[in-house]
Amino acid sequence: MKHILLLGAGRSSVYLIDYLVAQAPSQNWHVTIADLQTAHLPARGLPSTFLSYLNLDIQEQAQLNSQVQKADVVISLLPAIFHLPVAKACLAIKRHFLTASYVTPEIQAMHEAAKEHGLLFLMEMGLDPGIDHLSAKATIDRIREQGGQLFSFKSYTGGLVAPESDTNPWHYKISWNPRNVVLAGKGTATYLYNHTPKYIPYSQLFRRTEQINVIDLGELEGYANRDSLAYQKAYGLENIPTLIRGTLRWPGFCAAWHQLIKLGLTDDSYRLPDSENITYTQWLESYLPDNQLKKQDTIDRLAHYLKLPGNSRELEAIRYLGLLESEKIKLKKATPAQILEQRLVQRLALQPTDQDLVVMQHEFEYGFNNQKKRLKSALVLTGQDATYTAMAQTVGMPLAFAAELLLTNEINLSGVHIPVLPELYRPLLARLEKIGIQFTEQEENF
Amino acid sequence: MKHILLLGAGRSSVYLIDYLVAQAPSQNWHVTIADLQTAHLPARGLPSTFLSYLNLDIQEQAQLNSQVQKADVVISLLPAIFHLPVAKACLAIKRHFLTASYVTPEIQAMHEAAKEHGLLFLMEMGLDPGIDHLSAKATIDRIREQGGQLFSFKSYTGGLVAPESDTNPWHYKISWNPRNVVLAGKGTATYLYNHTPKYIPYSQLFRRTEQINVIDLGELEGYANRDSLAYQKAYGLENIPTLIRGTLRWPGFCAAWHQLIKLGLTDDSYRLPDSENITYTQWLESYLPDNQLKKQDTIDRLAHYLKLPGNSRELEAIRYLGLLESEKIKLKKATPAQILEQRLVQRLALQPTDQDLVVMQHEFEYGFNNQKKRLKSALVLTGQDATYTAMAQTVGMPLAFAAELLLTNEINLSGVHIPVLPELYRPLLARLEKIGIQFTEQEENF
Repeated sequence: MKHILLLGAGRSSVYLIDYLVAQAPSQNWHVTIADLQTAHLPARGLPSTFLSYLNLDIQEQAQLNSQVQKADVVISLLPAIFHLPVAKACLAIKRHFLTASYVTPEIQAMHEAAKEHGLLFLMEMGLDPGIDHLSAKATIDRIREQGGQLFSFKSYTGGLVAPESDTNPWHYKISWNPRNVVLAGKGTATYLYNHTPKYIPYSQLFRRTEQINVIDLGELEGYANRDSLAYQKAYGLENIPTLIRGTLRWPGFCAAWHQLIKLGLTDDSYRLPDSENITYTQWLESYLPDNQLKKQDTIDRLAHYLKLPGNSRELEAIRYLGLLESEKIKLKKATPAQILEQRLVQRLALQPTDQDLVVMQHEFEYGFNNQKKRLKSALVLTGQDATYTAMAQTVGMPLAFAAELLLTNEINLSGVHIPVLPELYRPLLARLEKIGIQFTEQEENF
Repeated sequence: MKHILLLGAGRSSVYLIDYLVAQAPSQNWHVTIADLQTAHLPARGLPSTFLSYLNLDIQEQAQLNSQVQKADVVISLLPAIFHLPVAKACLAIKRHFLTASYVTPEIQAMHEAAKEHGLLFLMEMGLDPGIDHLSAKATIDRIREQGGQLFSFKSYTGGLVAPESDTNPWHYKISWNPRNVVLAGKGTATYLYNHTPKYIPYSQLFRRTEQINVIDLGELEGYANRDSLAYQKAYGLENIPTLIRGTLRWPGFCAAWHQLIKLGLTDDSYRLPDSENITYTQWLESYLPDNQLKKQDTIDRLAHYLKLPGNSRELEAIRYLGLLESEKIKLKKATPAQILEQRLVQRLALQPTDQDLVVMQHEFEYGFNNQKKRLKSALVLTGQDATYTAMAQTVGMPLAFAAELLLTNEINLSGVHIPVLPELYRPLLARLEKIGIQFTEQEENF
């Protein structure tokens, strides 16, 4: 019997757990689901031979170690900060480790040691990062095998709301970590255009969007990721002239979000001493100049400061978030980002029957036989409801399949990896395709 | 004989050294001027009984300790990062310590220990911080003693160029640390307006300026300091409704600097891998969008991106800095801020006969006998030339006088202090006034 230890049973884990639980009897697996609290998790009607629940505080080193000891493979869906101690435990106790999170330098440094012990530390095995690596690298390798010469690669991904469930002026609902939504794009974005490195400061990021026409879906807007060049080497694109990776939003979101940034509401660098006792309007007042139009309403002065007409979509979006209401914030000594996050969670939540939408599109431009070709490859996946989201499916199923392949010895890799090797992307893309996570392609000459 | 150890003989030290050297024979002082290299310092024609030069690497702990041992008082004009080891040495060896730099939490924590040993650690004893504390606190105490009720305090300071020497579209020349000019305002500015805390993100700071009409000088522009509330308690202004501290510039500077920030050129968070080999124009190209007007000149696309007319003053200022020239940058793996700093130093240097200008103006609003009063108090000081600057005089002379008062036992304080106590500001302001560093007042009812 093989033992799988799953750390973290949050909103992204539902498909992963369903799959492991469904396979456990036939594969002779025992699945242990460990979280800080597991009492709220749904019963699965599976004998305890195959499934157990465990309340585990990841910071209790001894308990973590004893659980890792019992496992053949450890899967972590914990917040990113907890992966290092888990990886260390896996290395010390010699267990495989799978996660959807980014490789950090500390974990990358474990490559040789993991390899030496025949351990696979497979990171970035979710949607983005994850399916983006699988699908992009598969296509890049295919184009090259056919003799194509890549000169541009653009890749955009978004966790969005399905049009049927889009009921607000942001055209957005929260299907993943809301804190990441608030802090998205902080720092400087870097990409490559025609061999020139390009830099976009955070303050301009959400007005420097690109229109992205997604196959079978239409016009979306994309903004550049913090570091588009992070995977240049892993994808074998060292000499490509144009390379950009970014995030997709429905049109309108970025223009409104740009106003929140301009106001300073996404700042996470200081705490408001009195945030518990002030209202949202009072908070917003802190970001308006003091020297103009004192007698007018906050909304009028906001419009004046942002140079927007009173009936603009951006103002409608700000109003929709409840930033002009006289309700108290109630958070103690919160940062602006924390206050904004609370409002996003309250006002942009997926309702129980809402459907989310995952969109990923790669656009490759390459030369082949003296002809320029543009190949688009798109994944568009709609969720079932607020629990069975496309986000949970696309984050969880790559991990589920990777664990299965590892336990059935269909992967024989060791060391720290992200899924850019054919021996990973071939079987994983095949399995994902079978459950409907598949890419549609369109190609044109130009 | 009393011994004074001066650490750091950079551009701010000239007046301080002149004064100490001039007083040494009559006061029976020995002055030791220590710097990394002292060979370039001008000879003073003073016998070695009174004056010595010393090449000192501040990181050589043993040598530092032996010099501190010989001194009665240690004055530091070193870069801010070196003050902690010097303060530690002064505490261990029990010597007084004077500097123009900010009190850090680590040095503040030495208060009780310094007090116990009867040592004075007098910090923020230059211009800003320094003369601002002396003059503001003196006036605040005077208004209160007369029965006035303060409801607004605004204080702005600038190290500028004198109108006679203003020869560029920035209306600015470098009279102090150019790196601080580039990084000025990073983070979030905080101030208080009518009891409401106000926050300005860096991206908006240089367009949220206030017009400041300075006595005998006219209109300048001010932008808010990072933390205007830092001295609220030290000044006894805990309940004041309006409180802002800021930086002064000649009109035009802030609008042009805002464009540099908008482009991202003041960023110090990443290094350009190839900065050594690219030209300034190529660098600027990295901050322009890739998707518009590809055939036009950089200047035209810059104007288009910044939404400025081609003949605007902002573009003229950017061009003046040489950011549109085909000269190579030559700096290795530099940050944008470092590249910009190099251009400021090259293009906005004080020429040998140029005069700088120090401007400080406090504006107090207070109620007195049911009458609202506005009191302005301004210091406007012109330098002699590029060596004997108003900046060096206003940074160095408060330190010089404080050292003299300490060595002649006219100050009997111990612990860590900034100059907000009457026993400091009274004698110091009196001495500063005698050498022409004096404030002019204007008062009106409103």
